[in-house]
Amino acid sequence: MKLREQLLEIGRAGIAAVDPAAAVRAIVRADAEALHVGDAALPWAEIDRVLVLGAGKASARMAVALEEQLGDRVGAGLVIVKDGHGAPTERVEVVEASHPYPDARGERAARRLLELARQAGPRDVLLCCISGGGSCLTPAVAPGVALEALQELTDQLLRSGATINAINAVRKHLSVIHGGRLAAAAHPARVVALILSDVVDNPLDVIASGPTVPDPTTYADALRALDDHGLRERAPAAIREHLQRGAAGAEAESPKPGDARLADVRNLIIADNAQAAEAAVRGARARGFEALHVTSAVEGEAREFALALAGTARDIARHGRPVGRPGCVIFGGETTVTVRGSGRGGRNQEMALAAAIALQGTTNAAVMALATDGTDGPTAAAGGLVDGGTVARARAAGVDAVRALDDNDSHACLAAAGDLIETGPTHTNVNDLYVAVGW
Amino acid sequence: MKLREQLLEIGRAGIAAVDPAAAVRAIVRADAEALHVGDAALPWAEIDRVLVLGAGKASARMAVALEEQLGDRVGAGLVIVKDGHGAPTERVEVVEASHPYPDARGERAARRLLELARQAGPRDVLLCCISGGGSCLTPAVAPGVALEALQELTDQLLRSGATINAINAVRKHLSVIHGGRLAAAAHPARVVALILSDVVDNPLDVIASGPTVPDPTTYADALRALDDHGLRERAPAAIREHLQRGAAGAEAESPKPGDARLADVRNLIIADNAQAAEAAVRGARARGFEALHVTSAVEGEAREFALALAGTARDIARHGRPVGRPGCVIFGGETTVTVRGSGRGGRNQEMALAAAIALQGTTNAAVMALATDGTDGPTAAAGGLVDGGTVARARAAGVDAVRALDDNDSHACLAAAGDLIETGPTHTNVNDLYVAVGW
Repeated sequence: MKLREQLLEIGRAGIAAVDPAAAVRAIVRADAEALHVGDAALPWAEIDRVLVLGAGKASARMAVALEEQLGDRVGAGLVIVKDGHGAPTERVEVVEASHPYPDARGERAARRLLELARQAGPRDVLLCCISGGGSCLTPAVAPGVALEALQELTDQLLRSGATINAINAVRKHLSVIHGGRLAAAAHPARVVALILSDVVDNPLDVIASGPTVPDPTTYADALRALDDHGLRERAPAAIREHLQRGAAGAEAESPKPGDARLADVRNLIIADNAQAAEAAVRGARARGFEALHVTSAVEGEAREFALALAGTARDIARHGRPVGRPGCVIFGGETTVTVRGSGRGGRNQEMALAAAIALQGTTNAAVMALATDGTDGPTAAAGGLVDGGTVARARAAGVDAVRALDDNDSHACLAAAGDLIETGPTHTNVNDLYVAVGW
Repeated sequence: MKLREQLLEIGRAGIAAVDPAAAVRAIVRADAEALHVGDAALPWAEIDRVLVLGAGKASARMAVALEEQLGDRVGAGLVIVKDGHGAPTERVEVVEASHPYPDARGERAARRLLELARQAGPRDVLLCCISGGGSCLTPAVAPGVALEALQELTDQLLRSGATINAINAVRKHLSVIHGGRLAAAAHPARVVALILSDVVDNPLDVIASGPTVPDPTTYADALRALDDHGLRERAPAAIREHLQRGAAGAEAESPKPGDARLADVRNLIIADNAQAAEAAVRGARARGFEALHVTSAVEGEAREFALALAGTARDIARHGRPVGRPGCVIFGGETTVTVRGSGRGGRNQEMALAAAIALQGTTNAAVMALATDGTDGPTAAAGGLVDGGTVARARAAGVDAVRALDDNDSHACLAAAGDLIETGPTHTNVNDLYVAVGW
């Protein structure tokens, strides 16, 4: 029990380090002379207004932290959050919208966001709070294109197996915000984007569809993505025509790398998976564990990586390798689950269940898989913490672990074993932490 | 090009460390007084004969090394190898048999092996050379059971999704050699098994079906394995009847943990994946790389672990994490390939191809996947060494990497890109090495 509590504390230490407010406080501060963002100082004498704009699940909490740091130096602002993700700002307006399916509230708010950016002057500073969900929450599409048409096409692309890069090329060329268009609209105001990364490898142009980041893709790329999947003719007509007009030069391209309007934009990752993993390493060491962070770029099928993770736990337990006992090896990333059954779970619970089966009967080893946003799949759990006794505990409670995994029914099985992790919503998201433990 | 050659040298350094002859030389030596095996010394004055018995692909090479170390102290012996895996012994007889499908040559030789063990006296020392393939090469089944019947049942169990533990419980109770029976037959001779591990985690009772290792499973377990998959009635009658007689106490059980006949048997892992991985780490450091061995227990679908491996390479390249640049992170284990296409390849080539797709366009990162036996699947290649340009090189040669992976056609695709690794047969096998590289 003590060990379980220690491991949960290590997970919490990781999440606490990427709290959006803490991340903002770590990088933005004000003194009498200047607004400090990281190493840069912007003298107040050169600033008319500080505007806080943003979108994403964490943006309201980031806005609150900016208000705390800057006080009445914050002039105004607007952030768009997922329903229920508001926070008590004083000057910055918070608008709720739908996620993961975009809606008209998001679209209206996104147009207001764009308008605020357009109105900014050369002596204004825009602090943009960007986090996961920001793309879906700002579905402001090009004139003539309906939100429903965009949604329909996105579904077609997903079903046809298009890569995320292909889908992004299309989406960015149907948006008035994404692909650097928000920052371009703000020119010549000074733009600093504070970005909480929920995408493996922190690709700036992908997180929240990169509203402040030059877009390397073109209208021609977007059309090619449709053609590659035989979707040009089946796509909604307004979209096809918009992209074709764009490729013919009759619609404005998104700003490209080297675009002068974005030359001075600063895009700063203020929290990411590696920060969480490294804080978890420190948390582990503080509790007497040896600890190592291997990578934050794990991807692939959850139940498959579970086997490597369980193997790592066994290697620590049996050989004190690659860290001494007690020891933690920490990975991060975001896996996928290919749904074949009809059960309920999430990628972290599925990984934990598969690891539990691999660890069955093994002593002195455990595996933890944890969604840093506190929400793993359509469940109230954040993940699972399993060991060599998990399968037996589930069986004693009447649940067969192998059958549960076959049915993607990790939630009920881990619940039966008493091995769920529940954190409640953490209001941040830097993907997942995977911890192999041996003692 | 220089880097590619360095990485191949690092792989070769790993394989060289687990060469069967080198592994034997590292643990067995003779002086005028005694036979030394590891820390133990057996005085010649107490030894009548040294017999070398064994089975497995590497057993002839191990026997040659024992003859080199012990000279004419080796009295006689018999080892059973896969066709073409012989080596020039002087006193120890080498018999070739069929692998991976057992045959009558193997069965006859296994019965002779058992007879040699039975004839050993209390002042004899048996040095048993055990390595991968040893189980299939010694298919001496219980009286009344035909080899074909055993093969048929094994196929049924495999098709029904039985675990390897279940299959082993059945096989060990149909063999006169496996599950510790060879060592029991040799009692009261002194038995030292020199084991080259080709199984993840080095489970002594699993490698070559554990001829010198107590068997924790019972006839009842074997019957339960059949029942669990509805195979008791469908199993060949001679097998069903043998197992039922055994469960009723009318056939001899395999020696169990604590069996006095095996109390003095020493089972020594003389080479395993971790040794190879750690030698590769030393090889990398000698060439100026930072290097880290994470685990030797990677399992799961090859193309899925490829994504974590590619992610680790990207993390090294971009962030100098978890090792500085140039750096290698080394994993070991044995993955699987779920065959869905009709192409040709092996688990290492498939992992390399999937990693190449994940690394596409990434600079300063590479991934190597390498079968330590030099033979990856039904190909002459040992694996692949890929980087961010592999997909483009394949495309330039007319091969689409994504399509090739869909068709499990990794061999042709890596050949087209010039990214195959070919070592020729190495005459050892400690599973695979997976190396993430960044610079």
